Amino acid sequence: MRHSQTMIPTLKEIPSDAEIKSHQLLLRAGYMRQIASGVYSYLPLGNKVIKKVEAIVRDEMEKAGFFEMLMPALQPSELWKDTGRWYTYGSELMRLNDRHDREFALGATHEEIITSIVRDEVKSYKKLPLNVYQIQTKFRDEKRPRFGLLRGREFIMKDAYSFHTSKESLDEVYDRVFQAYTNIFSRLGLNFRAVIADSGAMGGKDTHEFMALSDIGEDTIAYSDRSNFAANIEMAPVSVTYEKSDEEIQEREEVDTPGQKTMEEVANFLSLPIEKGIKSLLFKIDDAYVLVLCRGDHEINDIKLKNIYQASEVELATPEEAKEHLGADFGSLGPVGVENIEIIADTAVQAMVNSYCGANENDKHYINVNPDRDFKVSQYADVRFIQEGDPSPDGQGTIKFAQGIEVGHVFKLGKLYAEKLGASYLDEQGKQQTMTMGCYGIGVSRVVAAIVEQFHDDKGIQWPKSVTPFDVHLVAINPKKEDQAELAEQLYNQLSDQGYEVLYDDRTERPGVKFADSELIGLPIRITVGKRASEGIVECKLRENGEQLELNITDLTEYLERFFA
Amino acid sequence: MRHSQTMIPTLKEIPSDAEIKSHQLLLRAGYMRQIASGVYSYLPLGNKVIKKVEAIVRDEMEKAGFFEMLMPALQPSELWKDTGRWYTYGSELMRLNDRHDREFALGATHEEIITSIVRDEVKSYKKLPLNVYQIQTKFRDEKRPRFGLLRGREFIMKDAYSFHTSKESLDEVYDRVFQAYTNIFSRLGLNFRAVIADSGAMGGKDTHEFMALSDIGEDTIAYSDRSNFAANIEMAPVSVTYEKSDEEIQEREEVDTPGQKTMEEVANFLSLPIEKGIKSLLFKIDDAYVLVLCRGDHEINDIKLKNIYQASEVELATPEEAKEHLGADFGSLGPVGVENIEIIADTAVQAMVNSYCGANENDKHYINVNPDRDFKVSQYADVRFIQEGDPSPDGQGTIKFAQGIEVGHVFKLGKLYAEKLGASYLDEQGKQQTMTMGCYGIGVSRVVAAIVEQFHDDKGIQWPKSVTPFDVHLVAINPKKEDQAELAEQLYNQLSDQGYEVLYDDRTERPGVKFADSELIGLPIRITVGKRASEGIVECKLRENGEQLELNITDLTEYLERFFA
Repeated sequence: MRHSQTMIPTLKEIPSDAEIKSHQLLLRAGYMRQIASGVYSYLPLGNKVIKKVEAIVRDEMEKAGFFEMLMPALQPSELWKDTGRWYTYGSELMRLNDRHDREFALGATHEEIITSIVRDEVKSYKKLPLNVYQIQTKFRDEKRPRFGLLRGREFIMKDAYSFHTSKESLDEVYDRVFQAYTNIFSRLGLNFRAVIADSGAMGGKDTHEFMALSDIGEDTIAYSDRSNFAANIEMAPVSVTYEKSDEEIQEREEVDTPGQKTMEEVANFLSLPIEKGIKSLLFKIDDAYVLVLCRGDHEINDIKLKNIYQASEVELATPEEAKEHLGADFGSLGPVGVENIEIIADTAVQAMVNSYCGANENDKHYINVNPDRDFKVSQYADVRFIQEGDPSPDGQGTIKFAQGIEVGHVFKLGKLYAEKLGASYLDEQGKQQTMTMGCYGIGVSRVVAAIVEQFHDDKGIQWPKSVTPFDVHLVAINPKKEDQAELAEQLYNQLSDQGYEVLYDDRTERPGVKFADSELIGLPIRITVGKRASEGIVECKLRENGEQLELNITDLTEYLERFFA
Repeated sequence: MRHSQTMIPTLKEIPSDAEIKSHQLLLRAGYMRQIASGVYSYLPLGNKVIKKVEAIVRDEMEKAGFFEMLMPALQPSELWKDTGRWYTYGSELMRLNDRHDREFALGATHEEIITSIVRDEVKSYKKLPLNVYQIQTKFRDEKRPRFGLLRGREFIMKDAYSFHTSKESLDEVYDRVFQAYTNIFSRLGLNFRAVIADSGAMGGKDTHEFMALSDIGEDTIAYSDRSNFAANIEMAPVSVTYEKSDEEIQEREEVDTPGQKTMEEVANFLSLPIEKGIKSLLFKIDDAYVLVLCRGDHEINDIKLKNIYQASEVELATPEEAKEHLGADFGSLGPVGVENIEIIADTAVQAMVNSYCGANENDKHYINVNPDRDFKVSQYADVRFIQEGDPSPDGQGTIKFAQGIEVGHVFKLGKLYAEKLGASYLDEQGKQQTMTMGCYGIGVSRVVAAIVEQFHDDKGIQWPKSVTPFDVHLVAINPKKEDQAELAEQLYNQLSDQGYEVLYDDRTERPGVKFADSELIGLPIRITVGKRASEGIVECKLRENGEQLELNITDLTEYLERFFA
């Protein structure tokens, strides 16, 4: 591709609304342009990267035994009403009416469509398992689209679905996709972790997220420093055996704590370690109030609460509700004397001795509080967030935290959608059975951003070879000089014939501009044709580490073969 | 691909709402399913054909010097308001509001987006011409979606755009795309014609449609039986030299024609040839009334009127309007005595002698009417439809009609969009100039339907080799027999290794079912492994002509090489 003929509008300035590196660099290096908030056009370079990512995804999905199909963006509301998501998806689901006033959703995901197709077309166990995928454009009206391709409103996704007669068959395909994803993200060059995740609004159980590690990731990953264990912090189980101290049990006592509200304030005021405090939060779980306790230095994890209660909504009660049901403001709540409200406590609480907690009266706390003696807990359970330094739940090593960008997700959906949409089959005995499903996504456009987050320096992008828009950046320092133009043209043809994709900077710009653009664009290798052109000498420079050398063009083929091997 | 593992839901019955062959066969052979009116899912086979068409389109567009990009479906209304199409496109343009109540169009086409991008990014003549394309999903809310993929509401299109500093540069690229399209449709195997077309709502001038010839096509093509001339009937110019007869001019006379309204009725009633009648129609052209005349055996072409008057709307006046302005009902209108209303006549009228026409009084006609003596014509022009038997406008041969399916379209847009959106550049003198544009579309999903219309018999589809979803249909008659299963597996692996795409029917269905499905699905060649499997003998059958022969598997490689050469 000749630079002069295509559109690579590089920018010197950092666009003001681009907060993160991938957003800045993809704009600055001319890969894309914003059309509306969260909506982008991929310019020629950006499109090439997208297509390379797609090709890798396709290849591995096919190897995993998945068949590609293509479903529409326009989805009749009826199907979404059947699963109930028309009502629960909220304003993230884009909706429109056609000219006959029929309601449609713009596909945010395709469980409804694929399940209805399979329901209509697959009737026998003989045709299962069935594994299909597509690469297609999705629409989600994010409240705050930002970070460029990381959180857009129109984006490219690979979504895959599998249908099964049994949990075992699902497990087998799930593992296969897990391996395919591992292959895909490895080939993409990403530093990633597969982490245990929460299934959120998708309604499944067993699920993993594939996280590209990055400081700007919005998800926190808890991982072991000595094993493969990794989980989204929302889901990471805590498996600590808490030892009860052998200190003597004291009489409970009420103390004044004027103006002391947070755990830290009260601990300081009472000169007691924060681990001795019981944190008490009133939650509304679906329609019931539950008082949730944990140790003062821990944080309550509402996802765990949601799972324990199999609830559809978990939220902190309002200050007014706390006042009404417990008689005090936030900061003075506690379990002592609470009746008619269920109390659940983190397992750590069970081992606490002579603790302190709010007295359900403003500016009052109890000290020397002891569980079971001073209050009744209906259930001890793992309800807190894991912390750095906790032992890894798999028993190997210690937990550390990292930030991650979710680039893929595999779910065991189970029978939820199949039941709601009536996707059943006849088993070997001729009995009607509900299908079991899995679903598997990769954010194709988001992957591009994640790669740039991991592969850049202060001068620009540093593409991995597998997804670089072009292999070689051929730069003629001064294409007006005949020897340079001639050699550059010759190399352009020769390298293209050898199967390399070459971006040829044939512009009559200053060398400084060309070099800066080249670093910004970030192809793996730059070949510069300059003043030694007449001798057949060019300069090769590697983008990943800045290594450069002069090379006789007779040695170029071998050099490139080795580099791209 | 193993049939048993994928989803190819063939149907015995013709779906009741599928009127044409391609719609019927693509449904029956399991290539696609309808999700909503005019909205389809492509199942694995259908997706494969789509991807093959896309690959051919991509290849030729790249060779023609176009760069691929990818623009979004969500398009801010502001851009469509700038070009005015927000108001003129009507209900075919799908619209929606986002969560913040901002208006969006779902891209029916991308002139607005690409022109705004180029406006913002390309400022100098040095960066022109610029040629870009995309393959992307379009949305048009057709009033009557029908004929399956021929007229859908969500469909795949290749759209391309070019930007120029001059008409000559546009001409050059237009010709290149014209050649690329010729290559594409030839490689797709289509019997097609490039025809001169009307630019319709797109607002350009020079334009050609690429028509796949088919009886079910909704467009009529007028073509020469002796040259390359072809035009959409809407646009075909009429170039006939009409000879004035030398009969003696008679006195005009009013005659009673009670109840005689159509040209035929009046001709019969008066015992005069219909070619002696003057057809008189009152049109409303933008806001003015115009009386349009042609010979009785001709038809008036409102597109020609529109072009002559450079009007935005041309419609027939209502009976009430005719009565008000001319004093009679339809069937008795005529030019004699008409004042204050412009009269335009087809050039054929100029040569008419002693004609008859309506007298602007119900049930009355004039005979022996002569133009210029009896009424004044403001302009003689080509305003009629060409007819079969007319001489070809290029002077070679005679016009014949054929029906066509529009599969591609090339336009010289000129400066229309660039002006409305302010896409300008600085020329070599540093002067600001408006860009000149071309745009070029191919209906990718429609092409698939057009191919099936041309390539089928009463048993099913007969794919051309270039777009067939698989090269070879491998059928094991009875895969439960060990020798058949073994040989089929061996061939499946061998042919796949040799680079053929093989659909392997490994089902335990009756042979009749498998053969019927095979003809329906329509791969170019079927290889049947049957009772002579143990001898290494298979049967090869060509789908295009039913030719079949038995072959030793040792000869298979050579046979296939020759067939697919």
